Amino acid sequence: MTTTFSQRVTHKSLLELAHAVHATIQGPTDLLISGISQLSDATSGDLSFVLKPAFHQAAKASLAAAFVVAQPIPDDPRPQLIVPNPLVAIATLAERFFLPPLPPRGVHPSAILGSEGRIGPEVSIGALVSIGDRVQIGSRVTIHAGSHIGNDVVIGDDCIIYPNVALLDRCILGNRVILHSGTIIGSDGFGYAQLEGRHHKIPQLGNVIIEDDVELGANVTVDRGTFGSTTIKRGTKVDNQVQIAHNVVIGEDCILVAQVGIAGSTTLGKNVMIGGQAGLVDHITIGDNVRIAAGSGVTNDVTPGFIVGGRPAVDHATWRKSQVIQYQLPELRKEILSLRKRLMLLESRLNETTTDS
Amino acid sequence: MTTTFSQRVTHKSLLELAHAVHATIQGPTDLLISGISQLSDATSGDLSFVLKPAFHQAAKASLAAAFVVAQPIPDDPRPQLIVPNPLVAIATLAERFFLPPLPPRGVHPSAILGSEGRIGPEVSIGALVSIGDRVQIGSRVTIHAGSHIGNDVVIGDDCIIYPNVALLDRCILGNRVILHSGTIIGSDGFGYAQLEGRHHKIPQLGNVIIEDDVELGANVTVDRGTFGSTTIKRGTKVDNQVQIAHNVVIGEDCILVAQVGIAGSTTLGKNVMIGGQAGLVDHITIGDNVRIAAGSGVTNDVTPGFIVGGRPAVDHATWRKSQVIQYQLPELRKEILSLRKRLMLLESRLNETTTDS
Amino acid sequence: MTTTFSQRVTHKSLLELAHAVHATIQGPTDLLISGISQLSDATSGDLSFVLKPAFHQAAKASLAAAFVVAQPIPDDPRPQLIVPNPLVAIATLAERFFLPPLPPRGVHPSAILGSEGRIGPEVSIGALVSIGDRVQIGSRVTIHAGSHIGNDVVIGDDCIIYPNVALLDRCILGNRVILHSGTIIGSDGFGYAQLEGRHHKIPQLGNVIIEDDVELGANVTVDRGTFGSTTIKRGTKVDNQVQIAHNVVIGEDCILVAQVGIAGSTTLGKNVMIGGQAGLVDHITIGDNVRIAAGSGVTNDVTPGFIVGGRPAVDHATWRKSQVIQYQLPELRKEILSLRKRLMLLESRLNETTTDS
Repeated sequence: MTTTFSQRVTHKSLLELAHAVHATIQGPTDLLISGISQLSDATSGDLSFVLKPAFHQAAKASLAAAFVVAQPIPDDPRPQLIVPNPLVAIATLAERFFLPPLPPRGVHPSAILGSEGRIGPEVSIGALVSIGDRVQIGSRVTIHAGSHIGNDVVIGDDCIIYPNVALLDRCILGNRVILHSGTIIGSDGFGYAQLEGRHHKIPQLGNVIIEDDVELGANVTVDRGTFGSTTIKRGTKVDNQVQIAHNVVIGEDCILVAQVGIAGSTTLGKNVMIGGQAGLVDHITIGDNVRIAAGSGVTNDVTPGFIVGGRPAVDHATWRKSQVIQYQLPELRKEILSLRKRLMLLESRLNETTTDS
Repeated sequence: MTTTFSQRVTHKSLLELAHAVHATIQGPTDLLISGISQLSDATSGDLSFVLKPAFHQAAKASLAAAFVVAQPIPDDPRPQLIVPNPLVAIATLAERFFLPPLPPRGVHPSAILGSEGRIGPEVSIGALVSIGDRVQIGSRVTIHAGSHIGNDVVIGDDCIIYPNVALLDRCILGNRVILHSGTIIGSDGFGYAQLEGRHHKIPQLGNVIIEDDVELGANVTVDRGTFGSTTIKRGTKVDNQVQIAHNVVIGEDCILVAQVGIAGSTTLGKNVMIGGQAGLVDHITIGDNVRIAAGSGVTNDVTPGFIVGGRPAVDHATWRKSQVIQYQLPELRKEILSLRKRLMLLESRLNETTTDS
Repeated sequence: MTTTFSQRVTHKSLLELAHAVHATIQGPTDLLISGISQLSDATSGDLSFVLKPAFHQAAKASLAAAFVVAQPIPDDPRPQLIVPNPLVAIATLAERFFLPPLPPRGVHPSAILGSEGRIGPEVSIGALVSIGDRVQIGSRVTIHAGSHIGNDVVIGDDCIIYPNVALLDRCILGNRVILHSGTIIGSDGFGYAQLEGRHHKIPQLGNVIIEDDVELGANVTVDRGTFGSTTIKRGTKVDNQVQIAHNVVIGEDCILVAQVGIAGSTTLGKNVMIGGQAGLVDHITIGDNVRIAAGSGVTNDVTPGFIVGGRPAVDHATWRKSQVIQYQLPELRKEILSLRKRLMLLESRLNETTTDS
């Protein structure tokens, strides 16, 4: 197979890039930059970046044309853009100069629009998108091909909805929300009333509210509230294949890594970080700034600021110690058996001694 | 962002609601109800519900206009609908009076229909749905926008297929089946024949059979049988992001919580409940009425009626005790070291004593 | 519900099947075969197969008309096709004689094609497919209904893309790649630069490269590289609901079972096998021929050829021993308490003895 393809290359002057992130330049400045790369992948023409001095050696070996750094790489003649936070600078440069252009504005002729909707200016609605009735869409929104927007949905400004998303009836997006492909917003919560051994569906009448600056990865599922709303608050970022059940509330600026599952009515505070594949049971409260290790199973409330891990999740120090010792169990068992033998021996000797004396 | 939107409010008389669930009314009866809410979210006009007396205090604090209860809330002047099972009553009321209407009947002009199909009366086929050849669709079925129905599929009566579902060739749905968005029925099973270090695909020739009253959540995957069928039996409910492999058989009235994975050819009896993120290996048999704790890894057959947990899953009591002790391991190890020291001391003392005597 | 449907049955002569896999026939040869089945499901007319002599009894009870075997079933008059590897033979027969035909070649009139694309001969593009600009599609490719192909995508020869896939901008498929329904290739990696308590998106400028003979299951997600590529190499097979993060490299001929998650920039060698629901942290290296048990949490590099398991994953023998002992912890604790008591008794007795003497 061939790995080349028709990429349209942009060339940007190093000076322009440096100005955009208020960088001090060390070294030559008359250079054109065609892309951004990690140190190991960079080719001539690329701008790369050094996140800490430990990578100076890798930087010297890199073929990059120039670097963004916090501390200059010693003895390297190539141009270096010095900034306080190289990762933030690279994010800014990537967004301003190297992002592919958004799709053309307007409504593709194959898209299906419902009635009584309101669409803001500079919106792009892609091929084979279907939009329900009474939908409100803000300014500069992009809805990519194949997505479905249900009835009575409200979408704020500058949102991006990638291909094959389903944003279902009555759900609400704030501004600058990004939904990646395959993500489902507003599926029914999992609620049944048990009667005579059968499960009777409790209709799910609520919706989902997603606030400003939230990004949800690919194939995420967010159930609508049974009654009331499932809510994801401002600035929270959610990775692929995360499951968020009905009536969950996720606070501001949280990070949920891939394949996390959160059961119904659980509430997260602000700035909570959850590692991949962790699961949280229903109806618990996770305080602000809590960190939950990957793979944990959280079964109880967690106090603000705590770090927890394990199944069931306990405080981080206890969990880490037990994790180490679990693999010493075979030796511990041997030790216990050996102690028992020695003890029996002592007991019988002491019995003899006592009898003797 | 704004969180208001154009919801079309229905007003129902309390008397009508009470009659529908055969409730005894305590308190005033001349009231109009505009929605159903949980106690904490209710606003004036809402009907709420009390599942147990422990919530009587919360009910008093609630702004709800009326309540569905099993035992009356003492000293509350608001109307109370007394029923034997409040949750069942609320489910009935939600379904009969507060569900949004189904989409209009008929075939949307943008839908693509294959040849030789048979479509029952009062069916709704949404925008941009594609349907293969020789498909049979029963009465009153709703297929929402963007879904795909493969060749030779059979769909019973009163099914609801939400947007962006793929129901693939030759699969069969019973009556009143609900498939939520992003769910895939009939993807290929994961089967390869190893030869000279490479994996050769075993074609997956079977199908999936989903019986009456089954509901599958969002982004669920159900693989077709390699040969024969993968089967989900009557009344079983499956939450989001569950994976069901080829030739699995799931009995009647099971509950599978989110992110569960079941490997190939495993068989579940009736009324099995599996907690979130649990995994079951291939080719095992789970008896009727088994309960499997969230996060478990089941590697062996489970006897009917057993409750199991852990990785690997064992009987519930053993698992729970071990779970507690795992976090006492650091102290147990200390205790063992201390016993060893004391024992050595005793041994040397006894040696001296014996030598002395 | 009815479980019958209009399947078009093919009849093949047993002799033709035997020739196709170079089998020796024992027993009668003048037979027509209408399908392939497992032993227990087979009906008259079916060819079944016996993978090991332990199944000879099941074969005798089976209603199959004929068998593919490595060693003949003793005392069974039915025809037996003797081959060195029955599973490989069955895979070959299933593919050559019993696979449903591919959809008709050509572009469905409802498909939307972008500009400047190049489409090879004998391609099939299904209903309501949307294809971006500058897309290159090889010979004999099948793109099923409802899938979306982004701008600048390259697709090799003989690929099959099932319904409702999203293959996003600039991603590259080799030859004979199979993508199952709901799978997302090229979603953004999960990368943010933290600044003043907020998460700033790092634009994801890379792509995904999927080499020849790779098969990805349903609802899989593969993120694009932040810069550079996420790569899945030749012959690797990935089950449903697997998450592959940005810049991951997966070697040749690996097997990833359902619901596995691999975090960013982790590298797998050749022929690695990962059991279901295992998770791998970011930036680690897994050597060739490593096997990782289902449900493991891998937090460190793994040496080529190692078998690991557990959370955190350790070598297989240690993990298995600890797994067994974890459930003996209650007895071990009792034993420790009993040893302590006996030791105290001995100590006091020895004190007395010493004092006495």
